[in-house]
Amino acid sequence: MENFTYFCPTHWIFGRDTQARVGELVARFAGKNATVLLHFGGNSIKRSGLYDTTVSALRERGVRFVELGGVVPNPRLNLVREGIRLCRDAGVSFILAVGGGSVIDSAKAIAAGIDADNGDIWETFVSRRPLKTAVPVATVLTLPATGSEMSPNTVITDEASGYKLGYGDEKLRPVFSIVNPELFFTLPPDQIANGVSDMMSHIFERYFSNTPHCDITDGLCESVLRTIIRNAPCLLENPENYDAWAEIGFAGTVAHNNLLGLGREQDWACHGMEHEISAIYDVAHGAGLAVVTPAWMKFVLPEKSAKLAQFAKNVFGVPAGTTDSETAQAGINALTAFYKKMGLPTTMRELGIPDASRFEEMAKKAVLGRSRDGNEIPQGNFRKLFSGDIVAIYNLAQHD
Amino acid sequence: MENFTYFCPTHWIFGRDTQARVGELVARFAGKNATVLLHFGGNSIKRSGLYDTTVSALRERGVRFVELGGVVPNPRLNLVREGIRLCRDAGVSFILAVGGGSVIDSAKAIAAGIDADNGDIWETFVSRRPLKTAVPVATVLTLPATGSEMSPNTVITDEASGYKLGYGDEKLRPVFSIVNPELFFTLPPDQIANGVSDMMSHIFERYFSNTPHCDITDGLCESVLRTIIRNAPCLLENPENYDAWAEIGFAGTVAHNNLLGLGREQDWACHGMEHEISAIYDVAHGAGLAVVTPAWMKFVLPEKSAKLAQFAKNVFGVPAGTTDSETAQAGINALTAFYKKMGLPTTMRELGIPDASRFEEMAKKAVLGRSRDGNEIPQGNFRKLFSGDIVAIYNLAQHD
Repeated sequence: MENFTYFCPTHWIFGRDTQARVGELVARFAGKNATVLLHFGGNSIKRSGLYDTTVSALRERGVRFVELGGVVPNPRLNLVREGIRLCRDAGVSFILAVGGGSVIDSAKAIAAGIDADNGDIWETFVSRRPLKTAVPVATVLTLPATGSEMSPNTVITDEASGYKLGYGDEKLRPVFSIVNPELFFTLPPDQIANGVSDMMSHIFERYFSNTPHCDITDGLCESVLRTIIRNAPCLLENPENYDAWAEIGFAGTVAHNNLLGLGREQDWACHGMEHEISAIYDVAHGAGLAVVTPAWMKFVLPEKSAKLAQFAKNVFGVPAGTTDSETAQAGINALTAFYKKMGLPTTMRELGIPDASRFEEMAKKAVLGRSRDGNEIPQGNFRKLFSGDIVAIYNLAQHD
Repeated sequence: MENFTYFCPTHWIFGRDTQARVGELVARFAGKNATVLLHFGGNSIKRSGLYDTTVSALRERGVRFVELGGVVPNPRLNLVREGIRLCRDAGVSFILAVGGGSVIDSAKAIAAGIDADNGDIWETFVSRRPLKTAVPVATVLTLPATGSEMSPNTVITDEASGYKLGYGDEKLRPVFSIVNPELFFTLPPDQIANGVSDMMSHIFERYFSNTPHCDITDGLCESVLRTIIRNAPCLLENPENYDAWAEIGFAGTVAHNNLLGLGREQDWACHGMEHEISAIYDVAHGAGLAVVTPAWMKFVLPEKSAKLAQFAKNVFGVPAGTTDSETAQAGINALTAFYKKMGLPTTMRELGIPDASRFEEMAKKAVLGRSRDGNEIPQGNFRKLFSGDIVAIYNLAQHD
């Protein structure tokens, strides 16, 4: 285990009817005389009534707020820049994000960009420089997936350059996050599945590590994965299954608040490779991960069969084969079968990517997004991947 | 799963050499011009050099401090009262506890008692009334066991009345906790074993719950228990095994920061029954728990065989028997065998309690400690225990 420091001061407000507390919580955390930005996506929170109850709750507490909707999946830099201007003009000192991971990520990027001393927001993402200050963000979660509700991370797409970059700063952990599983009842099957795929990937990115002696976090990762795998299919049968949503909602948050990644090198290659797919093809992140992850596992298998065999046994209960390699392959098959059961695509074609014509371009972008000198910065740590490796993985992802 | 709120803002500083940061951290969190109480136990931190390095680190940073040593296992109300007087006289506004759980618990009780508006400290414990304010506490941990380094809880013994009571208030979660597994290398085998028993019990108290649909926390509990069971025996073989200590140190903290207990009814009967044993016989808490826990499991087995069978299978890998009851009994046997392997007592006699002469008295105290009207307040929730039940459990604990 490696040394670590951990500080996760998000107030986690979990359970039925908890969104009713949003007015009280914003008033308490934003303070008197604050102007709040209410940030959201499209019409779903208007249809569901969550928009109205939130606005009423804020008004009841006398909270002054401005609004910015319009966040789309794979949230865009342009809207972030618009939000920054709006917040500066209105003197916003607190942001309430009501939505899924895209809304929360967009809110965090705005929060990071308001203080001009932090410099240009996209340059912050590219350089990964730390923030001097950030406006506090709070959330009401409507889709468990990205774990952004308790993470310091955000991912933004710059349409102009076609780059999709992640960024993290501890100042961006939400001050409070309301997670009410009832708010997930209206999600369609594809969003349920994409969310589940994303949270599983957050665990994989931590689990597949070369750091020795991480029994405790290995065990936590495996146990959360098993909980997800056991409960997620129940949601396709009945999207109003509160108990299953509670398990998935809890899992999605701990999957990415980094408890499960403490003291260990993390990977993040699958996220990096998927970002290039969704940056170009605008597919759902979780769907892209379901395609890339088994291909990545097949690619690293020859060198990494022991850990993949552990995964197969401890997560999917695969019986040990004659060799680790055999067990590992059975685990990859089990994961692919799980994705299919969830209705997720597992090949590039199912994802809507007809051919390999842009694999080279995506692979180059995956390793050059932050390069200053044109030299490739490899993706991943479990196995470092250069553009040639990534093309090979994209090709493996053309078939199950 | 039940609704919950969770807020755990302790800065967790984990790993080799991290105690070197104590000066910097105290200066940062206590603020300028603060007077700090350095609270500790006996001579072990003086022998190990930790006392000297701490004092030097504080002086280097210009931190003004007063000292109070002398905390003993099962920390005493008298010393807490002395600490409160000392802190009021010296204007202490920050407490640094350097030691194990007893030192940290003593520090928390002092922190809770300094503000006269909180009222008498023992009355606070008896009534469980919330604190108006508390002086911030920080810790350098020397013994992983109680989880006090990231919990809001403290347990104090009043020698005069013979009562040992727990108390919790979120204001008592340490602001930072330094956990360096190297500091555990000098612990003797009995302290290792007692610590392991205590952290396991913190998980049991949460795991044995009647709340349905807690897959996620059940899984987290089981995985942390497996990590402890796998790694603890390595420490008896080699108390300087850093890797095993890192697993145990991490486990001890998450066992009691309440992540594993979120959204579920908790039990705490074994802790309550043990407190009465150690309040009278002054035995080590972890040793008392190793005696009481299997007896409690045997007592609740007829009604609770399903959960005990789950425990047996998922924690000890016991193969399913013909009935849950059979599987459950095999799990209790496996737990008892584990305690024995760790050198822990598993009977009252091995604990140094020669006969049943005070069982009745202890059982009464266990249910009357907070009673205002002489009516018994039962211990536990998984199965509510009145004094008669507790006597039965103490009697069961006379034999394996």
